Amino acid sequence: MNKTQAIDAFLSQVNFNADGLVTTIAQDIDSGEVLMLAWQNAESLRQTLEKGEMVYFSRSRQRLWHKGESSGHTQTLHDIMIDCDGDAVLAKVSQRAGIACHTGRKSCFYRQFCQQKGIVDNASVLKDPKSIY
Amino acid sequence: MNKTQAIDAFLSQVNFNADGLVTTIAQDIDSGEVLMLAWQNAESLRQTLEKGEMVYFSRSRQRLWHKGESSGHTQTLHDIMIDCDGDAVLAKVSQRAGIACHTGRKSCFYRQFCQQKGIVDNASVLKDPKSIY
Repeated sequence: MNKTQAIDAFLSQVNFNADGLVTTIAQDIDSGEVLMLAWQNAESLRQTLEKGEMVYFSRSRQRLWHKGESSGHTQTLHDIMIDCDGDAVLAKVSQRAGIACHTGRKSCFYRQFCQQKGIVDNASVLKDPKSIY
Repeated sequence: MNKTQAIDAFLSQVNFNADGLVTTIAQDIDSGEVLMLAWQNAESLRQTLEKGEMVYFSRSRQRLWHKGESSGHTQTLHDIMIDCDGDAVLAKVSQRAGIACHTGRKSCFYRQFCQQKGIVDNASVLKDPKSIY
């Protein structure tokens, strides 16, 4: 089986939703930290496997989104899995510059439930977004 | 702020989709392993915060789904976060019996891309599903 056939075989197991999309979790391969959740269509998942870098589908812009294309904060793919029913993807990645979030934080999941305050930020901004974009 | 007010404040920051749902990632708090991805509506997220155990919304059954209600494999909630744009939830949990997947595996994400074979199982069944359900 060559790589194109392997990608086809993998893609055939993905259950894309009515919009042709699947949810994808990006997890830091070293720390295990969950960095972000985004969406992929078949073409972005294919490009991800071909390039070895994460390519998502931007629902707001309705186009392929090569993560890092404007920030430089690309994600190198190491391993990629689908779940039991094929409607979610888990990608283990190395995050360039250690910043996945457009707010300049490592992870997008920085807004934490707090019994005293409702919601609190649990991570600091590593780089001012104004200097990223 | 009491706990109900804190839950209301947290829920007010969640951007549920047109179906009133948000994607939720369950991550093992000890190992960092991503266990599963499911969906929550406002009521299931509220009950999760009240009970301290994961309650999802089953899209196939169109009802609240207290994880473990039939298997006994409940998930105790430790920390819960939303992402930068509020349309994804990350829950850090302890997984009872160490089995999150209905196939009897620890994690639902056991079907891995393989350049030689397309897709391979990367985790073994810990318990026969027939003896779980």
